[in-house]
Formats: sequence, structure tokens, C-alpha cells
Amino acid sequence: MASKDRTKVRRSPHKQSGDPLIVQQIVTRAILAHVAIEVDDQPFCIPVACAPYASELLLHGSTASRLFKALASGVPACVTITSIQGLVLAGSAFDSSMHYRSLMAFGRARVIEGHEKEEALNALTDHLFPERREELRESTPKELLATSVLAFPLDEFSVKVSNGAPELTEDGSNLWIGVIPIATQYGAAIPAEGLAQTAKVPEYISRWPVNRI
Amino acid sequence: MASKDRTKVRRSPHKQSGDPLIVQQIVTRAILAHVAIEVDDQPFCIPVACAPYASELLLHGSTASRLFKALASGVPACVTITSIQGLVLAGSAFDSSMHYRSLMAFGRARVIEGHEKEEALNALTDHLFPERREELRESTPKELLATSVLAFPLDEFSVKVSNGAPELTEDGSNLWIGVIPIATQYGAAIPAEGLAQTAKVPEYISRWPVNRI
Repeated sequence: MASKDRTKVRRSPHKQSGDPLIVQQIVTRAILAHVAIEVDDQPFCIPVACAPYASELLLHGSTASRLFKALASGVPACVTITSIQGLVLAGSAFDSSMHYRSLMAFGRARVIEGHEKEEALNALTDHLFPERREELRESTPKELLATSVLAFPLDEFSVKVSNGAPELTEDGSNLWIGVIPIATQYGAAIPAEGLAQTAKVPEYISRWPVNRI
Repeated sequence: MASKDRTKVRRSPHKQSGDPLIVQQIVTRAILAHVAIEVDDQPFCIPVACAPYASELLLHGSTASRLFKALASGVPACVTITSIQGLVLAGSAFDSSMHYRSLMAFGRARVIEGHEKEEALNALTDHLFPERREELRESTPKELLATSVLAFPLDEFSVKVSNGAPELTEDGSNLWIGVIPIATQYGAAIPAEGLAQTAKVPEYISRWPVNRI
């Protein structure tokens, strides 16, 4: 398959977008990606935490994970990030749908090693837990060895954005038609059992972005 | 690869679960799945709406979608449903993680046709938009033809549930350690432009389950 072929959104061409800005918006927010690879003629779809990393996407996992090892070996892969943003209540089941943004990127992962590895792990921590890293102890060499950090290219991709309003019905019925937004929020912090009363919930959590999945 | 092989969770064996009840809990709630298939040596990871269907998972898409056609042709596939339920703030970056539940199912999709197709589409509508179907007009034959409905088996799977509490640090620091829950909620309903003032937001929306992605 020619590379041009696989990034063309065949269906719903109005949803296609090659806008790198939308890609950046999606990866700047997302904390979860799904990665497709094939191992021994069986496709696998693997959920992984992710973070933006210049023009790439960072993924990390255990060096002992069989699927992560396969991904790290440079097999062809597809990384998809999907954000559901609402339910579209139309006048028919057929036209009912969801508001979503999805990014599908194609390529092969690159293993990050050496001094770049710590930097990449810091970028992951800063993305998943903003402002927390300075409170944490440094990672140990053993921990660094146990973690596999990969960078996935974002130069071959397709993006779909579905955010249209449903059409009104023409049958004069009083059916409500519209969109029910879906939003992801943080709940009340749950301290670990036995935590000192003097340890206060960090103030930076109030600044963490929402709608990350 | 032997089938026993691919459903064994190699990493984090304490997270493994073969409990079909957890599978049912996951699919009863989820509205989004990611499907991995390979087409012409390129893996694809496709986001799709889903619904429970007895011991299978319903997926639907356009009959004109190239990827959905491939899936419908019965190629080996992997369907993954992931629900992120919280951020785990530990004392180190290494131990920081997420609370999540994920289901990875392996198999081949079966095309639903004939009189079963309408029944399956109704099940999808009832799952995605509970209680709304009786207000909607029936699907037209043309709409039914344009929609591909697949059932994916849930008999070969692995489940991971990560819901543990982070350990306290022993360095006597006052660092807050615990879990920040992540919850998905509905926002205020947005009526379609031009909708009659007399069309009221359906009362059943208040009964719709949350945390579906």
C-alpha cells in the first residue's frame, strides 16, 4: 500500500484534516493512545500512556513486556488517539453519532536511549503529572533500565474531527435534537492509607488540564 | 502463536484477570473500542462505537469503509476497550501510574445480516442513547444497507485491572501521595440551531450512565 493511500480518510472526507495544528492539539492533551502491531499473524491493540515530544509522540512501557519489545523492534505500527467529546442526538438512529477527534499515525517507533532517555521520561512525567516532578525523588538507574521509552513519528497521519450539529427533523415533531457534551473531570483526591495529615493535596492539581481522554 | 499464549498477561500478572464478570462490567459500560487489524502489511488501529450483545461485542460502521470491510471479511483482529479511572500519584515517577481497566479480545468479527441486523442496530442505539429509540423514526432500508454491523467474540481475552493504592515513601517527607480519580460526565445539553422552544431536553438523559470512556 502506498503511503499516500493509508492516510487518506476514505469515508467522511469532510472530516479529514491534514492540519498539523490539530495533531498538536490532540497530542498536547491526550494521556492515552492505542497502538496496533502484528505479532505472529495476530494483531494486538495495546493501550499506552503517551506524551507529546516535539514532532513525535512518546510512549513508555516495561522493557520486559513482549508487546512493547515488538514495538521497540521497529515493526510497522499504527498509533491512534481518540477523544469523545459528545453524543449527537439526531432525529434518527442512523444520524445519531458522537462528537470526537481522532488521530491515526503510521510509522515505526524509535527507541530512546542514553542521556535522551531521562529527558524523555521527564517529559512524560511532566505531561501526565504537571508540576509534580520537582517534588519527586530522581529515578534510579534500575528504574531507568526497567522502562522502555519510545518515540513515534507524527509525520504520516490522518485526523478526523466530527463536531457538526445534527439537522432538525421536518416532521413537525417536538423531538429534542442537539448535542450532549461529554467532559472528563478530576474527582476528590484520595490520600494513600496512613498518609500524614500534614501532607496536603498539591495545589498544582487544580491547574491540571481536563478532557485528556 | 498458541491461543493460550496471546491471552496470557505477561507483565504485571497481578493485574491479570480471566473473570468473565469483569469483561461484562467493562462492555456494559463502554461506548468506545479500538480495533487492530492488518491490511497489506500495515497495522491499523480503528476507533469504533461498541455495545454489549449477549456474549459478543457489537461494532458498527459504514459498509463503504475500507477498514470496516476488511474487518467484516473475517481477518484476525484484536478489540481493546480501555477505561482510565484515575491518576496514581506515588513518591517517584517510576511508581506513578494510572488506575485503569482494559479488555483485550482476540478473534474474528462476524457479519450480522438479515432480520438480526435490525435487532443488533437497535441494541446499539439502546446502548449508546438509552431510552431514546422509541422517540426516533424507524431506520430506512437504505440506511440499513449503508451500515455494517459486526459481532466480535468475547471468549478469548485478557483483562487488566489496575486499582491499587500507591505506597507511602519512607523518607519522612510531607509529599502528598494518593489517587486523583478521573470521571466522565455529561455537560449541559446544546440544542440544535433553530430547534423549537417547546422541544425539551429529554428527561431520560438524567438517567444515562457516566464514565463510559
